[in-house]
Amino acid sequence: MRYFVTGGAGFIGSNITDRLLDNNEQVIVYDNFSTGIEEFLFKAKKAENFRLVKGDLLDNETLAGAMRGCDIVIHFAANADVRFGTENPQKDLNQNIIATFNVLEAMRKNKIKKIVFSSTGSIYGESINIPTPEDAPFPVQTSIYGASKLGGESLIQAYCEGFGFQCWIFRFVSILGERYTHGHIFDFYKMLLHNPDELRVLGNGHQKKSYLYIQDCINAILFALEKSSEKVNIFNLGTNEYCEVNDSIGWIVENLGLKPEISYSGGDRGWIGDNPFIFLDCSKINKLGWKPELTIKSAVIKTLEYLKENEWVLKRR
Amino acid sequence: MRYFVTGGAGFIGSNITDRLLDNNEQVIVYDNFSTGIEEFLFKAKKAENFRLVKGDLLDNETLAGAMRGCDIVIHFAANADVRFGTENPQKDLNQNIIATFNVLEAMRKNKIKKIVFSSTGSIYGESINIPTPEDAPFPVQTSIYGASKLGGESLIQAYCEGFGFQCWIFRFVSILGERYTHGHIFDFYKMLLHNPDELRVLGNGHQKKSYLYIQDCINAILFALEKSSEKVNIFNLGTNEYCEVNDSIGWIVENLGLKPEISYSGGDRGWIGDNPFIFLDCSKINKLGWKPELTIKSAVIKTLEYLKENEWVLKRR
Repeated sequence: MRYFVTGGAGFIGSNITDRLLDNNEQVIVYDNFSTGIEEFLFKAKKAENFRLVKGDLLDNETLAGAMRGCDIVIHFAANADVRFGTENPQKDLNQNIIATFNVLEAMRKNKIKKIVFSSTGSIYGESINIPTPEDAPFPVQTSIYGASKLGGESLIQAYCEGFGFQCWIFRFVSILGERYTHGHIFDFYKMLLHNPDELRVLGNGHQKKSYLYIQDCINAILFALEKSSEKVNIFNLGTNEYCEVNDSIGWIVENLGLKPEISYSGGDRGWIGDNPFIFLDCSKINKLGWKPELTIKSAVIKTLEYLKENEWVLKRR
Repeated sequence: MRYFVTGGAGFIGSNITDRLLDNNEQVIVYDNFSTGIEEFLFKAKKAENFRLVKGDLLDNETLAGAMRGCDIVIHFAANADVRFGTENPQKDLNQNIIATFNVLEAMRKNKIKKIVFSSTGSIYGESINIPTPEDAPFPVQTSIYGASKLGGESLIQAYCEGFGFQCWIFRFVSILGERYTHGHIFDFYKMLLHNPDELRVLGNGHQKKSYLYIQDCINAILFALEKSSEKVNIFNLGTNEYCEVNDSIGWIVENLGLKPEISYSGGDRGWIGDNPFIFLDCSKINKLGWKPELTIKSAVIKTLEYLKENEWVLKRR
């Protein structure tokens, strides 16, 4: 199969690219390198089955041309940071809604009908149903990021009905692991490198979050692609546990052998639209037969080890 | 209060404009006349409190300028016809998502924080919960129109959380009455004018739909605006009854005194993404104290009477 991976130089995109190449699949990566990192493709670039196209999803002509001859699109390019939506809403509109629309139209032009999409648990807003299943009551959006991802999801679903597409939509919790480039571990490690005695935390540290290890995430995606063949396939992806930000801080400082003074910005959330409790009900994909292998704690430590061995990543963002 | 009505030269927009002016409110109508009809504003134009701005929602500068000094935005401009999404998906993206984003950004610039939005029962896709309440299980989108309206809704909700906006979102069934310009009564009357002996019907005629009379719709909107003051206020708007397309045909041909031969295109739906059964649970707004005054049958007859007296409308579309 020939896979077209948008955002293939990003955290999740480059990891799935490597896995697909390991499985002897053909992969075309399409990335504008606005947040993608070319070094993440160092292994992929050595593979014969691999091709890299530098291009933007807002450039319809380049996009449609690059996609020619592919069998399936893995659309992982996105403005992926939920925290900065109120600073630049246009970015979420462009990168998460219009870009997704352009991908769908390029697929139509190329008669490609299968699409995998990285959505987010943020689209459940502040659900009162915790853990939150895929068919939770129709949520109210609380972040521009979540709203824009739901816009993308919705268009994909409508193309399935309208144009005979088939989709696999994954609503992720936060993903951790190798090539992780933003989020609390990134921020905390960077702060502690700068000053090992001080750590500033957004919110009160009691925000409850669930995390999933990148290789578990990719296992789940490829598993669902193989086992689930509805017209519209939607899965929550996470672990069946959660932790507080404070738990994660404990694991991080213990691993680093530090005892910083911790100060909190206060309040029950880290930023506008931050959900103080994200915990997804993943029983739908669990029942299909997938389970994560790593605990949240192991995933946090693995992420930290990666950052320690790859401090250059800290300077790139 | 100074109201800014986008799509104010359209069916619902011009009717609410007239009502607001009757209530001695100030109204600025913003319309690009792509589907709006200037004659619908003949009464409004005589009012002192009225101003018309011809402009497009994709023209951010004109939009933000026109909105200056308003207290509340009634955002009713849209690509409103669910049937043609697969012919031109770009239109739904532009007119329903990007246009809504532009309205929100223009509000931010002008420090306007209240917005009323015309959404649609189509966002429930093919719900198995009938009648469908506002908090039905998270639906799968089945039309590009519905997907684009949900994209608009979602952005509005996120702006409420992110920027302290307050919104009133109405998920309409099909609206009937004076200035109605598209839908089955329009199509059927036009066909019967052309040939009184023949009527071609999309689908098998057993599609079940719910309809609401325009003045009931406007009563409901103004009622909810007065009585409901959450950050995000979402209401289904419809009647507590439904009819089959065949029922409506019976009322129409009886009223016209015709006995046409009726042929059906067949299948349980009229077009791709058509929902064969739309019936909204309106108990949320009913409990607040609003009820429609007209039955579906009366609304169909009133619409037909309007078209008979205003055949020029048939030629405009």
